[in-house]
Amino acid sequence: MYSFANDYSEGAHPRILEAMMNTNLEQNPGYGKDGHCERAAGLIRKECGREDIDVHFIPGGTQTNLLAIARALRPHEAVISAETGHINCHETGAVEATGHKILTIPSADGKIHAAEVSKLIRQHNAEFTVHPKLVYLSNTTELGTQYTKQELEELSHLCRLNHLYLFLDGARLASALTNASNDITLEDLAALTDLFYIGGTKNGALFGEALVIVNPELKSHFRYHLKQRGAMLAKGWLLGLQFETLFTDGLYYELGQHANEMAGILRAGFKDCGFSFLSDTASNQIFPIVSAKLAETLAKEYTFETERVFDNGDMAIRFVTSWATPEKAVRDFVSYLKNCN
Amino acid sequence: MYSFANDYSEGAHPRILEAMMNTNLEQNPGYGKDGHCERAAGLIRKECGREDIDVHFIPGGTQTNLLAIARALRPHEAVISAETGHINCHETGAVEATGHKILTIPSADGKIHAAEVSKLIRQHNAEFTVHPKLVYLSNTTELGTQYTKQELEELSHLCRLNHLYLFLDGARLASALTNASNDITLEDLAALTDLFYIGGTKNGALFGEALVIVNPELKSHFRYHLKQRGAMLAKGWLLGLQFETLFTDGLYYELGQHANEMAGILRAGFKDCGFSFLSDTASNQIFPIVSAKLAETLAKEYTFETERVFDNGDMAIRFVTSWATPEKAVRDFVSYLKNCN
Amino acid sequence: MYSFANDYSEGAHPRILEAMMNTNLEQNPGYGKDGHCERAAGLIRKECGREDIDVHFIPGGTQTNLLAIARALRPHEAVISAETGHINCHETGAVEATGHKILTIPSADGKIHAAEVSKLIRQHNAEFTVHPKLVYLSNTTELGTQYTKQELEELSHLCRLNHLYLFLDGARLASALTNASNDITLEDLAALTDLFYIGGTKNGALFGEALVIVNPELKSHFRYHLKQRGAMLAKGWLLGLQFETLFTDGLYYELGQHANEMAGILRAGFKDCGFSFLSDTASNQIFPIVSAKLAETLAKEYTFETERVFDNGDMAIRFVTSWATPEKAVRDFVSYLKNCN
Amino acid sequence: MYSFANDYSEGAHPRILEAMMNTNLEQNPGYGKDGHCERAAGLIRKECGREDIDVHFIPGGTQTNLLAIARALRPHEAVISAETGHINCHETGAVEATGHKILTIPSADGKIHAAEVSKLIRQHNAEFTVHPKLVYLSNTTELGTQYTKQELEELSHLCRLNHLYLFLDGARLASALTNASNDITLEDLAALTDLFYIGGTKNGALFGEALVIVNPELKSHFRYHLKQRGAMLAKGWLLGLQFETLFTDGLYYELGQHANEMAGILRAGFKDCGFSFLSDTASNQIFPIVSAKLAETLAKEYTFETERVFDNGDMAIRFVTSWATPEKAVRDFVSYLKNCN
Repeated sequence: MYSFANDYSEGAHPRILEAMMNTNLEQNPGYGKDGHCERAAGLIRKECGREDIDVHFIPGGTQTNLLAIARALRPHEAVISAETGHINCHETGAVEATGHKILTIPSADGKIHAAEVSKLIRQHNAEFTVHPKLVYLSNTTELGTQYTKQELEELSHLCRLNHLYLFLDGARLASALTNASNDITLEDLAALTDLFYIGGTKNGALFGEALVIVNPELKSHFRYHLKQRGAMLAKGWLLGLQFETLFTDGLYYELGQHANEMAGILRAGFKDCGFSFLSDTASNQIFPIVSAKLAETLAKEYTFETERVFDNGDMAIRFVTSWATPEKAVRDFVSYLKNCN
Repeated sequence: MYSFANDYSEGAHPRILEAMMNTNLEQNPGYGKDGHCERAAGLIRKECGREDIDVHFIPGGTQTNLLAIARALRPHEAVISAETGHINCHETGAVEATGHKILTIPSADGKIHAAEVSKLIRQHNAEFTVHPKLVYLSNTTELGTQYTKQELEELSHLCRLNHLYLFLDGARLASALTNASNDITLEDLAALTDLFYIGGTKNGALFGEALVIVNPELKSHFRYHLKQRGAMLAKGWLLGLQFETLFTDGLYYELGQHANEMAGILRAGFKDCGFSFLSDTASNQIFPIVSAKLAETLAKEYTFETERVFDNGDMAIRFVTSWATPEKAVRDFVSYLKNCN
Repeated sequence: MYSFANDYSEGAHPRILEAMMNTNLEQNPGYGKDGHCERAAGLIRKECGREDIDVHFIPGGTQTNLLAIARALRPHEAVISAETGHINCHETGAVEATGHKILTIPSADGKIHAAEVSKLIRQHNAEFTVHPKLVYLSNTTELGTQYTKQELEELSHLCRLNHLYLFLDGARLASALTNASNDITLEDLAALTDLFYIGGTKNGALFGEALVIVNPELKSHFRYHLKQRGAMLAKGWLLGLQFETLFTDGLYYELGQHANEMAGILRAGFKDCGFSFLSDTASNQIFPIVSAKLAETLAKEYTFETERVFDNGDMAIRFVTSWATPEKAVRDFVSYLKNCN
Repeated sequence: MYSFANDYSEGAHPRILEAMMNTNLEQNPGYGKDGHCERAAGLIRKECGREDIDVHFIPGGTQTNLLAIARALRPHEAVISAETGHINCHETGAVEATGHKILTIPSADGKIHAAEVSKLIRQHNAEFTVHPKLVYLSNTTELGTQYTKQELEELSHLCRLNHLYLFLDGARLASALTNASNDITLEDLAALTDLFYIGGTKNGALFGEALVIVNPELKSHFRYHLKQRGAMLAKGWLLGLQFETLFTDGLYYELGQHANEMAGILRAGFKDCGFSFLSDTASNQIFPIVSAKLAETLAKEYTFETERVFDNGDMAIRFVTSWATPEKAVRDFVSYLKNCN
């Protein structure tokens, strides 16, 4: 039984484990005030093409989202997100638990656009409604889609005109930055957003996300917030060490690219068999639409998630690949699929 | 420069790293719903002598404290803690950030007693004050001291009479359970408290605490809270794997005992030189009181923290040992101390 | 310029002012522990046909909503509301500020139904989503519509089956209970909901709402919550005194009925002129749909709100009547309307 | 049985009730956007000697405190207060419920001083502690004492140097500003604090406090906060109307002065009999120390509160006078006291 259920089913890339072994008995200062974190931050600053950004390493994605948002907002301020956004559907109300409402925009493909944000802002301009102050995006999105540079520029422009912060959740940023459809770089993100994060958990780390704070208004006292929300890891160098490894010799990109290539083989397999997809992706997630019967047959040998069930009984099922997916596994799957079909 | 600054300066015990290496490419379900977590929970249940307890694995201690407390309390309810309690002084207001007041009891040695709790409850019985509902202890305490079984029994009895929850923070529980002065077992904790945690971070794990929920009132939906506060690790089996290793062949106790023995050598060294201590400990923390001049000399070769500065300029300084402290390091230090003195 | 903008444009019914004058120099205990509050609670218990309910008097409606909801919910629990619900659109995120997400149901007429609630519950049954625990209704709704007894019974039944609380916001309950289409009594509300409130502000009081808590689980320590949220009025007897007056000689119902009758005259006037309405109401709010030109003309002599602007430029405008609306004012308006048309 | 239990036992000053009667059928815009609020704000601006301040009218004191503090602070920031401060002891954890810790300074007389604040700031300068950001004072204090202008200047100076906000709770400000020991004016408060409030509830209003925001950083979007916390009264003009009346012809000061004079007669009575006091006050609260036996005798005819019970059984009891206290009541009490003694 092989699992395509997600991109965090295995441990860490061997180079990361090796770095941990090699440094295991080093004595490091706690709480992220160590040399590994400092070097990792330096590598990320270089990749972003600027020195004036803060980098914080945080164990998990939900933590990173709630921290970034709660740091940025005053009590009366709200977040704008796609209805399908991770913070809206998959984090058990973590943002609301910090006191903030999420205003949602319906989205078929997981993305939101400047015009929709603009409309929603105009609808919330009275003191008996919350005050929209931050736009939340993910790239790639929950549906595996991704933003173009132009879309991001339009959102960024709108946010700046309207004094909103733009925050990009990059849990799957490696897959976004390294696929064939992408025209965005880390430099672009540092130029166009106020803060964003570079996901490690879903790209070869044991755990860890790197939050990049660009907007100077959001920098001060961030470490107090880290500690208050329980997100300041005692052995913080473990986070730095992992990102140091990921951003040495391009490993971060290499792993994203591998995941994308493996998904590409699956995608081609489904296309060859004539299946359509719930969303049009170039990343490490695909959502083919299959009959319930085929889904059942596939589930005998493979693990995957069901994204949606249609009225006619057909299903959109989700396959996710990762840095750890062997080419043999995807080729075997395609053969199996072709036999089933 | 050797550091006695704390017990989380190094990585993990080699057996833990080895377990990680060996399982690195296993495909595990995410979020703690895997076999390692299940087995680790089973080992802890066995150690506690009962099957009817829930065990949750959480990346860090502040998270564990805020989760346990926020799960237990209604908005108008408050925590009782020693003034020196970790939640009161060292967690950046994490408990208050979840909406709850901490009522404090002054404490010279870090411990609180049933009579003091009883008095404080009587002082807070009107609707314009918060309603005390949970007593927070740590064992060992911030000052390295520890509770006797009788003290715990008295607190437990008082809490049950008054419908208060008793929560014990066991970040340094391994050191507490394995030193010469201890008369408490995990079975006792499961019998006397409503919930408590077994610290991994300070006892040989890369990270991780095991929260044990005994009181059935506090069990339901706890995983929702985990997710909401960003404490549900994606690769959750990493936590289970570490506790599985710690509770195999008594490693957890072995590491605590080693830390205590290393502290014992330091303690004896200071005693031999005639120093007194801020608190009377049998655990892995000692707080000798030295002149500012001596502290400065020691700081040339060793890292440690200053706990308190007295009016006459003398200082209580803190030395902490761990599973990773080599006997040579403590013997070298004692020699250095004797030379300085 | 006469205002139909809302039902809280004037002070209090003369009998209420008179009661205030007559008791002004009475010395009363503070915080609602006085004889007036006790008598008012008794009158409301009698009206509800049962003695086993708690009654609390609270200065305002938003306070009452946030208090009722925050008292009822644990951190991971959520509210279900119509998308148009007052708590979702008109209270500046007050519920989210207490930490809870609102899950919404689209609604054309402001009402929600058991089948929709049932579907939403089934969609939120995993630990990465919030846990729906309370259904929020208002009667009449934001669009002036109202529930039938059968609809309430179905919602109540569903909630009990699924362990959800049912909470009814009765800011405009007087208008709901006294119009021609109504088949619900206070006794029904006490039988079918877990808690509900009887609005005073919009029915002749200077300010004040009476929260009725039926479900014993929600009763304890409610006054602590009142104080904590700043809702325990120092001169609390002022609230009791007003409800004592409203529930003496049926004044509460009399005022609701008057408001409904005045709205009926407006409604008939618009109908006579051939206008349709955004929602079908029998209560003190009407939402005729008129051309922008007519709206402009009406606005020269009358104040009212715009509820919605349609693509063709037509508008749904809102007229609200109250206990204080003189019959002459509505008759004058109808004449003016007929002249304009 | 006459009550000296507090200064909010009666309704409103007759001029206020009269104003309500006279305007009862005026149609006013809701939520404080009416002419009465505007005029009242103007009168307060004039009294403060400056036009560049914002004035908001809020139903109650606890609401005002929690709103002012929650508006001013970021999640990691904390309040500094006397241990006896109203927000620390008498508001059921209202400040903590908004997420903020209160750091306390022990105080025998209810006041805190610049040197103590300075020390506490120095003790809280690390990221594992909360960040002190606002100093909370009350004038008069819970023990009826009051600040001198010099003390306020020192606190103000310290706060500005250290980037802390200074907030003064003026629930009993009328009594503070009008007694013989006072050397402070509203102009001084507007010059020395960042925000403060002028209490109405305890000085002749039915309810209501006027929050004055001086610091421009704290002004924006305050009305959103009012609404979110349920503190924006629907018939908001009732608040404006009361303050309009209080600040016409000096009524506000006149009422404070009367309360002080009545307390002066009580104070002199106790002094004549040789009693000492818990605190040295010139305001409308006195705390004579009496035997338990005398307290019992007094309680047969009068209502008052017990502030403290000493080890020898003696008690500090509290007498409070108000705008409504008749001279006959205090003279009668003094006679009764002299007879008892």
